[in-house]
Amino acid sequence: MNGTDFEYLSKIKYPSDLKNLSDTELKKLCAEIREKLVETVSKNGGHLSPNLGTVELTVMLHYCFNTPKDSIVWDVGHQSYTHKMLTGRLSEIDTIRCKGGLSGFPKRLESKYDSFNSGHSSTSISAAYGIARAKVLQGDPSYTIAVIGDGSLTGGMAYEGLNNAGRFNKNFIVVLNDNKMSISKNVGAMARYLGSVRVKPWYIRFKRKVEKVLMHTPLIGQPLRRFLRGSKSRIKNMIYKNTLFDFLGYTYLGPIDGHDIEELKNAFTAAKTINSPVLIHIVTKKGKGYGPAENNPKEFHGVGKFDIDTGEVISNKKGFSAFFGECLCNIAQNDKKIVGITAAMTLGTGLSNFSKEYKERFFDVGIAEEHAVTFACGLASKGMIPVFAVYSTFLQRSYDQILHDAAMQKLHIILAIDRAGIVGDDGETHQGVFDVSMLNSIPETTIFSPCYFSELEHSLFASVYMCSGVTAIRYPRGGELYMPEDYTDSSINFTVYGNKESKNLIITYGRLFSYTCLAKEKLQEQGIDICILKLCRIKPVDKKAVKIAKDFKNLFFFEEGIKSGGIAETFEDLLTEENFSGNYHIQAIDEIYVQHQSVNEALSELNLDEKGITEIIIKNINNSNKEK
Amino acid sequence: MNGTDFEYLSKIKYPSDLKNLSDTELKKLCAEIREKLVETVSKNGGHLSPNLGTVELTVMLHYCFNTPKDSIVWDVGHQSYTHKMLTGRLSEIDTIRCKGGLSGFPKRLESKYDSFNSGHSSTSISAAYGIARAKVLQGDPSYTIAVIGDGSLTGGMAYEGLNNAGRFNKNFIVVLNDNKMSISKNVGAMARYLGSVRVKPWYIRFKRKVEKVLMHTPLIGQPLRRFLRGSKSRIKNMIYKNTLFDFLGYTYLGPIDGHDIEELKNAFTAAKTINSPVLIHIVTKKGKGYGPAENNPKEFHGVGKFDIDTGEVISNKKGFSAFFGECLCNIAQNDKKIVGITAAMTLGTGLSNFSKEYKERFFDVGIAEEHAVTFACGLASKGMIPVFAVYSTFLQRSYDQILHDAAMQKLHIILAIDRAGIVGDDGETHQGVFDVSMLNSIPETTIFSPCYFSELEHSLFASVYMCSGVTAIRYPRGGELYMPEDYTDSSINFTVYGNKESKNLIITYGRLFSYTCLAKEKLQEQGIDICILKLCRIKPVDKKAVKIAKDFKNLFFFEEGIKSGGIAETFEDLLTEENFSGNYHIQAIDEIYVQHQSVNEALSELNLDEKGITEIIIKNINNSNKEK
Repeated sequence: MNGTDFEYLSKIKYPSDLKNLSDTELKKLCAEIREKLVETVSKNGGHLSPNLGTVELTVMLHYCFNTPKDSIVWDVGHQSYTHKMLTGRLSEIDTIRCKGGLSGFPKRLESKYDSFNSGHSSTSISAAYGIARAKVLQGDPSYTIAVIGDGSLTGGMAYEGLNNAGRFNKNFIVVLNDNKMSISKNVGAMARYLGSVRVKPWYIRFKRKVEKVLMHTPLIGQPLRRFLRGSKSRIKNMIYKNTLFDFLGYTYLGPIDGHDIEELKNAFTAAKTINSPVLIHIVTKKGKGYGPAENNPKEFHGVGKFDIDTGEVISNKKGFSAFFGECLCNIAQNDKKIVGITAAMTLGTGLSNFSKEYKERFFDVGIAEEHAVTFACGLASKGMIPVFAVYSTFLQRSYDQILHDAAMQKLHIILAIDRAGIVGDDGETHQGVFDVSMLNSIPETTIFSPCYFSELEHSLFASVYMCSGVTAIRYPRGGELYMPEDYTDSSINFTVYGNKESKNLIITYGRLFSYTCLAKEKLQEQGIDICILKLCRIKPVDKKAVKIAKDFKNLFFFEEGIKSGGIAETFEDLLTEENFSGNYHIQAIDEIYVQHQSVNEALSELNLDEKGITEIIIKNINNSNKEK
Repeated sequence: MNGTDFEYLSKIKYPSDLKNLSDTELKKLCAEIREKLVETVSKNGGHLSPNLGTVELTVMLHYCFNTPKDSIVWDVGHQSYTHKMLTGRLSEIDTIRCKGGLSGFPKRLESKYDSFNSGHSSTSISAAYGIARAKVLQGDPSYTIAVIGDGSLTGGMAYEGLNNAGRFNKNFIVVLNDNKMSISKNVGAMARYLGSVRVKPWYIRFKRKVEKVLMHTPLIGQPLRRFLRGSKSRIKNMIYKNTLFDFLGYTYLGPIDGHDIEELKNAFTAAKTINSPVLIHIVTKKGKGYGPAENNPKEFHGVGKFDIDTGEVISNKKGFSAFFGECLCNIAQNDKKIVGITAAMTLGTGLSNFSKEYKERFFDVGIAEEHAVTFACGLASKGMIPVFAVYSTFLQRSYDQILHDAAMQKLHIILAIDRAGIVGDDGETHQGVFDVSMLNSIPETTIFSPCYFSELEHSLFASVYMCSGVTAIRYPRGGELYMPEDYTDSSINFTVYGNKESKNLIITYGRLFSYTCLAKEKLQEQGIDICILKLCRIKPVDKKAVKIAKDFKNLFFFEEGIKSGGIAETFEDLLTEENFSGNYHIQAIDEIYVQHQSVNEALSELNLDEKGITEIIIKNINNSNKEK
């Protein structure tokens, strides 16, 4: 079914088209949106559960507020598909997450309805507060709304924003989308607190300030009264009691059924009249309306292509995440000092089995990467061996903690960095291309970047038992790639593969080794002999590897990461120290952000796939010959 | 007066020596400690107000708990001087912050009583929770205590820790040292909340769980009863009411007078019996006991040498911070889009005047560097021009926000990076030597590193009106250094100073230019002619500068920052692209942490002062001549 086949959805070009719909029509629209969401994500992959859970919320925000003048800031932003459909992008929704198509996250350059870009968690309140403050300075009376999930609320940055905005009083609304996803034994006090609030559905709590408004200001009070009148039992059971959010300066409205059109309408209308920051607590069901996602919201949180009827995910072969999880379980079995830590990514980082088998030694700390690292440091200071499994892009939050709490203090913690390198269709905010530069600049760290499962296993063992200080192992999304049949000499330090008497040398690490091997074969066919120096431990670089490299004439360093501060530059400097006098070419990611597209498309664009590597080498060898 | 001249203090070798002192004796001890603190800091400089405010707290923690088995984690750690005096380091306290002497912060390598290193804010709860969890896994029943100030509680990481530890129940105590320093109109809701709790002194609030313990468990309940009996009015006014901390899972005890020995004793003894995490809220006075510091706690927060009798600080000439503040005021006067932001460092970053003159456009967001950057992004997304003034070392907390929220989104924010480079006696945790690598790895950023006030002024103007995206200006602690009389050609891009026909070229940026000029004169005396390429805009490096450099034979890059990912490496790679064939030597900070000592001592150790620069150049030129 196409967008044009939907009775209501096809008529919504912009949010203004929503305004005249009746509640019944709005409900039908929501059903159509759900259908379109399932259809789209089944084809393109993407974040299904979060989008299914926020259909009514998104529709009613656009219905009640005057976007884009009123600004909506989506936390994380993976729940913005409905928002995109309603804001002029329905016809393009089929291109979502595809090269050249719509992004899976809000993008200011894509639409004026996207008021702030997102991707990482817990930024929305800070950004919205900045927008709201700018509006005050500019005399603009429009509203600013941050939409944040209960998971994102475990991130400290959200609290910094809540705290700072809690004294503000101008048209500032935080919508807490509580989908109960942060509830897990380990996650923390806020989750338990929300749980305790949630068990009394329809009890509304106002603090006295609101009560006064209600009593003494007929005009402003009316929407509030309407909100209260929504349910008879609500008034009956109304309790005037402080909540945690009241303490922080917010007028708390909730909990609201986030799938009830009328409830949402009343709450948003009421919120507009309150002269303090408002926190609206809505409760939603992740995956709402699609059986397989409702039953398994985590599986369908971010998902690949799947079969709509069965909900069966078109699965890939075993990836590095799962293999890492197995390895960690094996080590933990024999060593009670091993502790596993995740920041709300148990499934994604392959720690599900570990979390069950070693319950006492497993900690899901919430979306709190800063805390995760320093918590690991505390454990390490008492002799435990903590392993923090984390996506490369999210580790960026921990830069100061890795530097200040772990490395400087010489504490032995292990960072298992998943999704290192290009990640594909999630796009620029999620690329794992900065971790190497980040860790390379921190003194006394060790970094491994295996290409194959066996190397991951050996690197992990070495990290635990043969290294000290901060030790990182980084591995890509997905599974193993090509391994030449005659490649047998894998080492966790470095390996020379090919003819050492050749004039030409490729230097690389991680999965790019597979592509350079394919390129090597191509080059061989064209009569170009080339050797490969494959690093597995990329920091510190082994000086023996540099001594080997310096005797070649043409050196090509291929790096799936940002160039500045990367290993190619380090290697270049080590070559200079060795008085290297040949040619040195670096192919890395240089001063650009890699947009959403498949991994293969991205590597091709960056000249880091088989074809790109081959062409760059031929071009440079030809140039170097011409010069002579 | 020496440590040995004090009647009580001189007898305390270790905390066990405290145990037999009467309350009266403890009070006298505290008075002696205060005297010693003032004497020490007046000579060495250091953090005076925080230490004066925590004398009783520290004494009573060591009195009531069994350190080092029980672990105390000091947040920030600048309040640990008394702790050092009581734990075997009294005789060395005069060496504090001096090269080779005691650090001004807790250091695990210095003493087994220092359970965790600190320096940056808001890490203590995370670290303490890690320590406490390790103890549970190891069957160790000892206590773990995090001591955190109300200022540090504005940092999101503290909340991440509070949240995660809020479900724990084993011997875990958070002492909130509320010295009312985070109170300022802008800082936020938590400060207001603490203020509201604090206005009812001596009202103690317990939640029901404690009440039950009190009623039903005679043995455990007794210390609690004793705590309550401390004051008659306390029982009378006791209120059983939830606080914000109760919501997060903590048993709240407070507020307590943090200068009352008996109060503290009762509270700590009571806390030991409670089977949930406990938060003890103590109220202290920063600078307590020393008039000048009580009257001006901010001035005496971190202070240089001063006159004990008058409290007069032995002041330096005008520094970069003050000059930056003047420049920003000048620009703001003519441009209403300019907004000033600080993370609790109004005075330190030179923004005092700005905060008064442009009140509406000034934001102190608390110790919340993550929020500060994304808040700035929100402002910038609406066309404002936010300038975030921040110490280099604290900007490390914002790495992900600069990358993900600002640079990737191409928002124009300005980072005014104070204390860039070596900062001196605060030591390794505070060195501003990572910001260049950090920003250099983020695509599409611009960085200026001026050496003189005039360059700072021009860089700031260029940042505001001639640049886009993330633009940083970094400048050192202190003021201007040497400028040669014939240096007139200052540019915010790059400047060539000296004989362009020379074979030798120094490349440098920031204040090192002054030292290289002095070295140049020394070398000239010895018949070595050398030219200097001085960069002011260090990112992007102007290719014209590279083209000039490549024609020299011997190149020396001096960089007051970490080598990996720094400008010297970038420059090296640009030279390679230009087929440079001469010698290239980098002198930077390579894989080490620079310890506490004066700035001059550190630069000397790193071979980055006049003498070191001269020697390195002579040595390398000699070597290069020998090779020919």
